[in-house]
Amino acid sequence: MTHDESSATLRVADLGEFALIDRLAAVLREEAVPARSAPADELAIGDDAAAWRPTPDRWEILTTDALVENVHFRLSTTTWRELGWKALAENVSDVAAMGGRPRRAFVTLGLPPETPIAGLEELYRGMAHLACEFDLVIAGGDTVAAPVVFLSVTVVGEVEGPGLRRSAGQPGDLLAVTGVLGGSAAGLEILEAGGPGPGDDVGRSLAHCHRNPSPRVRQGLVLNEAGIRCGMDLSDGLLGDAAKLARASGVGATIALASVPMHPCLEERFGPRAAELALTGGEDYELLVAAPADVIGRAEQALRRARLGPLSVVGRLEPGHAGQVRVVDAAGRPIQPSRASWDHFGRSGTRR
Amino acid sequence: MTHDESSATLRVADLGEFALIDRLAAVLREEAVPARSAPADELAIGDDAAAWRPTPDRWEILTTDALVENVHFRLSTTTWRELGWKALAENVSDVAAMGGRPRRAFVTLGLPPETPIAGLEELYRGMAHLACEFDLVIAGGDTVAAPVVFLSVTVVGEVEGPGLRRSAGQPGDLLAVTGVLGGSAAGLEILEAGGPGPGDDVGRSLAHCHRNPSPRVRQGLVLNEAGIRCGMDLSDGLLGDAAKLARASGVGATIALASVPMHPCLEERFGPRAAELALTGGEDYELLVAAPADVIGRAEQALRRARLGPLSVVGRLEPGHAGQVRVVDAAGRPIQPSRASWDHFGRSGTRR
Repeated sequence: MTHDESSATLRVADLGEFALIDRLAAVLREEAVPARSAPADELAIGDDAAAWRPTPDRWEILTTDALVENVHFRLSTTTWRELGWKALAENVSDVAAMGGRPRRAFVTLGLPPETPIAGLEELYRGMAHLACEFDLVIAGGDTVAAPVVFLSVTVVGEVEGPGLRRSAGQPGDLLAVTGVLGGSAAGLEILEAGGPGPGDDVGRSLAHCHRNPSPRVRQGLVLNEAGIRCGMDLSDGLLGDAAKLARASGVGATIALASVPMHPCLEERFGPRAAELALTGGEDYELLVAAPADVIGRAEQALRRARLGPLSVVGRLEPGHAGQVRVVDAAGRPIQPSRASWDHFGRSGTRR
Repeated sequence: MTHDESSATLRVADLGEFALIDRLAAVLREEAVPARSAPADELAIGDDAAAWRPTPDRWEILTTDALVENVHFRLSTTTWRELGWKALAENVSDVAAMGGRPRRAFVTLGLPPETPIAGLEELYRGMAHLACEFDLVIAGGDTVAAPVVFLSVTVVGEVEGPGLRRSAGQPGDLLAVTGVLGGSAAGLEILEAGGPGPGDDVGRSLAHCHRNPSPRVRQGLVLNEAGIRCGMDLSDGLLGDAAKLARASGVGATIALASVPMHPCLEERFGPRAAELALTGGEDYELLVAAPADVIGRAEQALRRARLGPLSVVGRLEPGHAGQVRVVDAAGRPIQPSRASWDHFGRSGTRR
C-alpha cells in the first residue's frame, strides 16, 4: 500500500498517538519546514518539551499539554481546583523532566456556556497555588466557547546548558527513578470506586497522589547540575516511558522488577497487583533518568544532601532493538508484564 | 450582591469573554501570583501577546489562540488546509501586531477518533505553507482525543525593543490601519450562502480574503522600526478592536467613516452594507495603530517605500471615557453603528 492510499482511508482511531505524530512530522519534512531554520541542536517534536537557544549560553524550553473533559478528567470525580493544579503540574513536570526552571504559563480554556464561573475561579486558584509553589507567572492565554471543557496549557522555562533529553542515553547507562511509583494509578482506582471511606487514611493518601501530583522541579535542577544528560518525566507509566526513552536513544532496556520503588501503601491495598501499578501506572510525575553508574551515584548523593528523596536504580540501557524493554525478576528471568502504558488514542475511557 | 454570591450562580454565558478574563485575572491577583516575579514592564493577560525580556536588550513574545469545530469553523465549509493556514495565521498576526517576528509554533490538536488522517495531513500542509512564507518552525505540540476537533496554537517570536502595545496610545494620536477592511467578513457571507458561483471573480476574491488571510508581519516590522508604539491586529472588526485599544490606553476614539479603507469589491457586492462590513467585519488581520501625526507620516512613507501597501488614517484618540468609540460622517456628525464587534461568548453561532 502506498503512503497516499493508506492516508485516504485511515482514521485517527486506526493509528496510535505516536504513529500519528510521526505522520504529521513527515508532512513537515516533506514541506521542508523545520529544515529552513531550526539549528541541529534544537529539540523539536518528540521530547518532553521544545528547547532553543536565544543566546549562545542560554536555553529556553517550552511545553504544551491539553486536557479534555470526559477524556482526561471527569468533573464528577475531579474538583475544579484539582483540575487547575493538575493541568499546570503536567506541564511543569515536562520542564522538570529537562532539568529546567518553569517561568511563565499560558492557559487556553474551552468552555461550554453553562460552565459555572465559581468553578473557573476555583480552577484558577488551583493553578495559582501551583504557580506560587514553583514560582511561575500565569501570563496569558485565550478563552473560547466549546462543547466540552478543555484546557490547553503552555509553560515556558529555562535550563542551564542543554539539560536532560530522552535521546541522550547510551548502552550501559543505569536507569534510575526519583521517588516512589504507582501511587497515582492506585489513587485513581480508589477514586473511581467511590473514593476513600471515612478513616481510610491509606486510600486518602493514594487519592492525594492522583489529585495533587508534585512536579519534580527541584529534583530536575539537582540532576542537571549533577551531570545527568538523559531523562524524562513519568506520565504514562515506567514501562511505557522507559520504552520511549530507549527508543529515542536508539537502545533497549532491562528493568529489574524487584528494584522498582513502590509507593509504600500499594501492597497493603492492592496485594499482587501492586507491581503492575508501579510498572504501568501513569501520572506519578517522578523523573526517569539514564547515566553511567558514577554519574548516577553522584546524582543520588546530591539529591539526598538536598533532602529531595531517593534516586533508585531500576535497570539499565542495553544494545539491541531500539525501544524494547524487558522486565526481569530477582533471578534475571524475563517477566511478561500484563499491560503496557496508556496510549491516548488506542484505548477508550478516561485516563484519570 | 457580593462577589461571592454572584460567583455562586453565574455561568460563562452570563459574562462576556472579557468580563470572564477580568474575573480570572482577579483570582490571580488575590492569590498574589503575578506580583511575585513579573517585572512591571512585562505584558501579561490582555494584550495581543505576552512579552518578556530574557536579556536586557531582547524581548520575546508569545501568543496562543484556540479554534473549536462548530464554534470557530465548520468542516463542511472550511477545508483542512485552510484551517491549518488560518489557525497559524491568527497567532502569527498577534506577533505581527506587536511588531515582532514569529519564530516557532506549537500545535495542540483535539481529535475525535473518526478524524481522517488525510485531513490532518492537509491541515499540516496548510500550516507548513504559512510557516514557510513567514520563516517559522513548527516545533512541537500535543495530540489528544476530544469529542470535536480543536486546535490550540502557540507562537513564540521576538521583537526589537518593546514593540507595539495596545496601551501605549495618547489623546491626540491619529488612528490608522494597514490595507483594506471588510473583505474577510464579506467572504464569509458569500461562503455561507453557498460559495462563489462559476465566473464570480469578485466572490472568489472575497472568499479568498476569508480563507487565506495574510498576517501583516512585514508591515508590523516596518511600523515598529518607524517608531510606532501603539497597535494591535484587527481580528474582531475595526469598531470593536478600536474600543479595545482605546480602553487599554485609557482614552476615547473617533473614527471617520468616510476615511475607512474598504475592500474594493465591497460596494459592488454589498451596496449600503459595505460600510458595516468594513467597520465591524472580523478577521481582516490588518494592523490598527495609534501615533502622533508625524510618526504616522513617517510610517506611511516607510510602508510605501517597502511596497507594503497603504497606511490610512481613520480617526484619532481623544480624552474622554476610556474605550468609547464614536463614528462620525464626513461632516463630523455621529453615526449609530448597526452592530458592535463579535464577542466570542455573547453570541451563538459560528464566527467563521
